Amino acid sequence: MPDWSTELWLREYLSPHDVYMHGVTNVLAKTCTEFQAMWIIETRTFGKALLLDGKWQSCTADEYLYHEALVHVPALVHAGPRNVLILGGGEGATAREILRWNTVERVVMIDIDREVVAACKQYLRDMHQGAFDDPRLEVIIADAREYLERSGKDFDLVISDLSEPVEDGPSYRLFTREHIQDIKSVLTEGGVFGMQAGSLSHHEMHLHARLARTVQSVFPEVVSYQVAVPSFATPWGFLVARDGRLDTRPDPAAVDSTLEDHVDGRLRLIDGSTYLGLLQTQRPIRDAIAARSDIYTRDDPPILEDLAGRS
Amino acid sequence: MPDWSTELWLREYLSPHDVYMHGVTNVLAKTCTEFQAMWIIETRTFGKALLLDGKWQSCTADEYLYHEALVHVPALVHAGPRNVLILGGGEGATAREILRWNTVERVVMIDIDREVVAACKQYLRDMHQGAFDDPRLEVIIADAREYLERSGKDFDLVISDLSEPVEDGPSYRLFTREHIQDIKSVLTEGGVFGMQAGSLSHHEMHLHARLARTVQSVFPEVVSYQVAVPSFATPWGFLVARDGRLDTRPDPAAVDSTLEDHVDGRLRLIDGSTYLGLLQTQRPIRDAIAARSDIYTRDDPPILEDLAGRS
Amino acid sequence: MPDWSTELWLREYLSPHDVYMHGVTNVLAKTCTEFQAMWIIETRTFGKALLLDGKWQSCTADEYLYHEALVHVPALVHAGPRNVLILGGGEGATAREILRWNTVERVVMIDIDREVVAACKQYLRDMHQGAFDDPRLEVIIADAREYLERSGKDFDLVISDLSEPVEDGPSYRLFTREHIQDIKSVLTEGGVFGMQAGSLSHHEMHLHARLARTVQSVFPEVVSYQVAVPSFATPWGFLVARDGRLDTRPDPAAVDSTLEDHVDGRLRLIDGSTYLGLLQTQRPIRDAIAARSDIYTRDDPPILEDLAGRS
Amino acid sequence: MPDWSTELWLREYLSPHDVYMHGVTNVLAKTCTEFQAMWIIETRTFGKALLLDGKWQSCTADEYLYHEALVHVPALVHAGPRNVLILGGGEGATAREILRWNTVERVVMIDIDREVVAACKQYLRDMHQGAFDDPRLEVIIADAREYLERSGKDFDLVISDLSEPVEDGPSYRLFTREHIQDIKSVLTEGGVFGMQAGSLSHHEMHLHARLARTVQSVFPEVVSYQVAVPSFATPWGFLVARDGRLDTRPDPAAVDSTLEDHVDGRLRLIDGSTYLGLLQTQRPIRDAIAARSDIYTRDDPPILEDLAGRS
Repeated sequence: MPDWSTELWLREYLSPHDVYMHGVTNVLAKTCTEFQAMWIIETRTFGKALLLDGKWQSCTADEYLYHEALVHVPALVHAGPRNVLILGGGEGATAREILRWNTVERVVMIDIDREVVAACKQYLRDMHQGAFDDPRLEVIIADAREYLERSGKDFDLVISDLSEPVEDGPSYRLFTREHIQDIKSVLTEGGVFGMQAGSLSHHEMHLHARLARTVQSVFPEVVSYQVAVPSFATPWGFLVARDGRLDTRPDPAAVDSTLEDHVDGRLRLIDGSTYLGLLQTQRPIRDAIAARSDIYTRDDPPILEDLAGRS
Repeated sequence: MPDWSTELWLREYLSPHDVYMHGVTNVLAKTCTEFQAMWIIETRTFGKALLLDGKWQSCTADEYLYHEALVHVPALVHAGPRNVLILGGGEGATAREILRWNTVERVVMIDIDREVVAACKQYLRDMHQGAFDDPRLEVIIADAREYLERSGKDFDLVISDLSEPVEDGPSYRLFTREHIQDIKSVLTEGGVFGMQAGSLSHHEMHLHARLARTVQSVFPEVVSYQVAVPSFATPWGFLVARDGRLDTRPDPAAVDSTLEDHVDGRLRLIDGSTYLGLLQTQRPIRDAIAARSDIYTRDDPPILEDLAGRS
Repeated sequence: MPDWSTELWLREYLSPHDVYMHGVTNVLAKTCTEFQAMWIIETRTFGKALLLDGKWQSCTADEYLYHEALVHVPALVHAGPRNVLILGGGEGATAREILRWNTVERVVMIDIDREVVAACKQYLRDMHQGAFDDPRLEVIIADAREYLERSGKDFDLVISDLSEPVEDGPSYRLFTREHIQDIKSVLTEGGVFGMQAGSLSHHEMHLHARLARTVQSVFPEVVSYQVAVPSFATPWGFLVARDGRLDTRPDPAAVDSTLEDHVDGRLRLIDGSTYLGLLQTQRPIRDAIAARSDIYTRDDPPILEDLAGRS
Repeated sequence: MPDWSTELWLREYLSPHDVYMHGVTNVLAKTCTEFQAMWIIETRTFGKALLLDGKWQSCTADEYLYHEALVHVPALVHAGPRNVLILGGGEGATAREILRWNTVERVVMIDIDREVVAACKQYLRDMHQGAFDDPRLEVIIADAREYLERSGKDFDLVISDLSEPVEDGPSYRLFTREHIQDIKSVLTEGGVFGMQAGSLSHHEMHLHARLARTVQSVFPEVVSYQVAVPSFATPWGFLVARDGRLDTRPDPAAVDSTLEDHVDGRLRLIDGSTYLGLLQTQRPIRDAIAARSDIYTRDDPPILEDLAGRS
């Protein structure tokens, strides 16, 4: 007998031929903002989830995997970030994680969509956990590109948590070499750049590879790493880059010591051993990056469906 | 506009509230064997796939991730296996991978379902790639438990590639301490045991944890590792165990050298760096295992839906 | 390209192997009442819809087909009902239709679920259209059986608009001969009984047939008729019965004249010609009824899934 | 618990926001012909089904409702057809029904798609039931328009059983006034034209209405009728037209007598009473036709998605 009690379903297209569906128990918010369609729903298996333009962004059940990987890997590469810039990150969970570092003095978060940020504040307390109230955090509703253009070398760490670059949307230009150059230009000496970098499913990995190549065209050291976030269905790729040495064989004990000294509370995903493991880019990704030579530029940006981002 | 051309869909329940659907382009085989319902289908995104009792087992697009992780991690732990026993593995891909080791003299593969093996031979050549013709491989259609009971200390490596232990099915007893003890009893000195060990999605991880505890009750050294197989949607767990030292911080260069000396052809997933990364069990899994104390025994075996295995 | 904007879907099982899904734009109400799970949703194609225990009851886009057929066919058979009893009918649309008859002096509506009635009042104004404010209508929250037992021959017309008789639910006994006898006992001389009587899809028609036989065991004249309600997917069956002559070849012009004299406003479905057409029971239904001899009794009531009713 | 054994599903889009899914037990044929994509599948609930370009055409469980209505209504209007022309009708079931008339001397069936006809012959014997072997039937693989242009007043009855007029497809011109005029030009004195005329769901009824207007612009007498075919989900519309009197209030007994004299075997849907009922066009359809004034012409034909036909 089918389960009659699950009559409402979220349908997410992962590709035109692959669909992931989740039983929905409640709809918390639904609106069309100036920029995108937004849903905040409650699911049976994955807790509360944010969707933008039909794409699953993150959910309370496993967002810690995504956000800890996104934040703490570049933060550990830097080892003591003080000024941090977040691009996107409307849920407030990226800010939440970086604010756990006691080295951090100031976090600027630039998100273009005021309504999404407000809805996340209201309905996704499990995610931001009060981060929006931290006096070190400044939220600016603006276009990230404009902010970057008028900033100086102010940041030790820039984290890009931008969602899917849809046609005519504001974010598709943020995945190009010119944009990565703008980011590099606001980094302090030895500064680090981390970004979410798309699905690593076999039919989408080439896009991650091209993005890696794009970042490599700006930064001398770039490492691709992945986490398996169950609610995303496909493994998820990230990039961390530094204008300087990036040690991919750190001593786990030393990492644990850094975390103990500088990070508030016990992380759920990242510790020395996990960090070491993540930095060992798996061979298929290395091969895909090696096989790619083209990059994204302002004149040849990613287009609709080239990248399916999570924020 | 919906894509009218994708009218046939596979629906896989990952949980009663989570469904993964794939566009199907062809049905190659469909039968009810003595033991289970079997489909071999062709999908748009993931190539040819084998399904048993409605559960996705593996597909040509990404089975290499599963089978290389399943086989080469325990094989590298051993470093020079000569006699190998495979439990399950009907597709022939597990045999294919171990037969790449030039140290291997004999592989015995025990599968209970003659019809599944025959169908895989016929329709999934992309998977077995002729492994069934290798003179070192002996396929025995039998119950694995009986075979184990009458074997001596004959094997350097045992690989368990068994599917979901459904109620009244033959395999549910194969996930218990008694069975793991039987496996240990056929291992040579320093022998290694590897097994597929279920989904690591947050709502299923406790089952992997209990299985890890079960293996730990028999072997002194057990390591849990995972790969993200996109067609599985959820990250997949494995266990490798040895009655002796199991080095989780190997030197990648030395591993690459072993692979070059002993493994035929270039692997797609595993090399020294990937191997080092896989052995760094991620913190959530370590925590889940630490939090668990009960084990599976003959009197308290996994039951229907406790484990969702892939073979 | 799939339509990204339709991410939320209602899934209704019409059988274990047939599923009807509708894009959902909003969730207006969702609760578990004392008796059943209730959703009121808004769909793209079919307007607002009420669901009880996962079964689609009616929607604003085509409920007029269902409710006009349910009400005006028995009302026209009677031709001048004054006192009317409605069993079920929480949406208020059955009451709405019978209150259009200027012959009607009093309508008693018995529904067991106070919360469903309240939610329909609040969210489905399009359906009741203020009927709940008509001073001729009395809504009683009670078990229909008890009310029938203590009533006299008070009603010219009884309309049964009960939903699915689920196991242990209150309504499954309302589809038995004993219950039909109770209904007959509250009818005035020449009184008429009308009821919704389930799906007429080929694999469910036998249930309608058995229900028709059950009513035939109490009333001398019973006519089965159907309307195609698009949102139901399957054609829907009704029964009208009278303890007296039931003319199935009425003169359409005379019917139109009766409607003009006694019914407020222009009906959307029913007029003389449509009424004549509906009364010509289609041959497959006649054959199915003729082929059936058993009836539903208190000792042999319809069970879960025997009948899939709409209210 | 979900039914694990139903893993393969047909997904039919009835609109971009409404999807009907059926459990599939087998795939009998699948090909892309010169004109369209074709599947012949076996479903749990509805038997074998033919799909063209993703649209459900007919299935063995309830095609009799469609084909008897399509054929015997116009045949009864004529009362004694001798020469009959079928446009489309690849399954052979339209031919099967008209060949039951002992007045019929010759049936010409024009279908454009040789492969579909061949596949139906091979896999859908339940449908054609040997009709293709009747010496009175001549199957011509050709474009219907060309055939009509070179024919004389040869036919007492023309039945149009054409599928969806997709863009750039051959059939979209067959739903225009010019084409209806061509059909009228091959009819004998008092000849009758019958056609399948699309879904009558509330959001599609205007297309049927415009088609009715188009036929009315050529024939003086046109009647719209409908049957509820469960596997179609939506009620289905037909048109019957005559250049002469078309009696919509026939005497059922006389109709039964005609059927007894001239039709081989007992029909499942049509008899005198059902026929009388069908001819009472329901008020919503009459209203929709009355509200429409435009017609389809060669310069303004139905376009993709205007009509969703079944053949």
